[in-house]
Amino acid sequence: MRLAELSDRSGVPAATIKYYLRERLLPAGRRITATQAEYGDEHLRRLRLVRALIQVGKMPVATARQVLAAVEDESLDQNVRLGAAVWALPRGPEPAEDDPATAVARREVERLMRRLDWCWSLEAGDASPAWGTLVAAVAALARLGYPSEADDLAPYARAAAQLAVTDLDLIERFRTPLEQVEAAVALTVLYEPVLLSLRRLAQAEESNRRFGTEG
Amino acid sequence: MRLAELSDRSGVPAATIKYYLRERLLPAGRRITATQAEYGDEHLRRLRLVRALIQVGKMPVATARQVLAAVEDESLDQNVRLGAAVWALPRGPEPAEDDPATAVARREVERLMRRLDWCWSLEAGDASPAWGTLVAAVAALARLGYPSEADDLAPYARAAAQLAVTDLDLIERFRTPLEQVEAAVALTVLYEPVLLSLRRLAQAEESNRRFGTEG
Repeated sequence: MRLAELSDRSGVPAATIKYYLRERLLPAGRRITATQAEYGDEHLRRLRLVRALIQVGKMPVATARQVLAAVEDESLDQNVRLGAAVWALPRGPEPAEDDPATAVARREVERLMRRLDWCWSLEAGDASPAWGTLVAAVAALARLGYPSEADDLAPYARAAAQLAVTDLDLIERFRTPLEQVEAAVALTVLYEPVLLSLRRLAQAEESNRRFGTEG
Repeated sequence: MRLAELSDRSGVPAATIKYYLRERLLPAGRRITATQAEYGDEHLRRLRLVRALIQVGKMPVATARQVLAAVEDESLDQNVRLGAAVWALPRGPEPAEDDPATAVARREVERLMRRLDWCWSLEAGDASPAWGTLVAAVAALARLGYPSEADDLAPYARAAAQLAVTDLDLIERFRTPLEQVEAAVALTVLYEPVLLSLRRLAQAEESNRRFGTEG
């Protein structure tokens, strides 16, 4: 298809597509004349991933480009490739190393991982961006004196394990390894606000059940 | 206790405490001389909530002030008060009303809520900030052609229901209604990065289980 049709079918304005092409967020089309190129389904798919990262995930272009480079790396095992693509997503704040709460948090996170038998995470440790974000978040809880021990975190981790099964089931609906990696990245980003808003609605339901005065 | 002790015990610099007092994020102490005031445990507790909102939650001062006003409203039922305080937290993007994907998303969210029997959320509907955020997030999925039907969302909602039970159990560890509302707000904010990073670690574990090549 030509650029105009790619724009129609994706709903992305032609000027925006040209910008993504210039920024190498979208691979070039197959050149058919000096001024025209032909685009395929892979461009449509890539375009929706770029939209997920930039429009919904609010990622800077440079970060999105790194995520896409990880997505495209076919030299990796599928498992490593999924991990690398998700690792390239923007990370939360890093733990403050000079803060005693960080040491406490790191110990509790390790206890939690051992208890759940999350061997892969224990082995990756600080190399994993999510591990660093988790330590920083648990340190913030500890510093403020809120529940932050492995026992307090365990029910959240068990819910996360269940979510991951749902996530991977969704990802496995896609056929090729490339489509799966694209979906893993997009769904990780797009389902975060879904999950957080469902949690707030569920809190209201549960609060109503416990404290509500109406029958 | 005096300001210096409040600073020592909370770990918040005296200058920052003075700033919070000026911005009315912290109630004034009990005046004992023309230049000195006495602070109590309620100041220590409030200080950690303010830190959770501003330092961890990255909230603007004006938003934090609105959240605190909701926390302090003793005229409300405990259930309504918990809801009002959490509603005052910063919300995600609003759904785009002129987008057909928003209509599709709203229908799927309503189907989901009916299926789960989340009556309170169905009744509040768009009045609830989390409902709006959920509709916008589901619309983004629908627009990009990713799984976004009530069937796709249901496992996430079931995980959220379980999380809400854990959240409310944590909140009920606090004794007074005021402490519970403070904890509800702080823990909603502080546990979001915990939950999202646990999900990413759990994804890596699950991906390794399904696609890993090592024994």
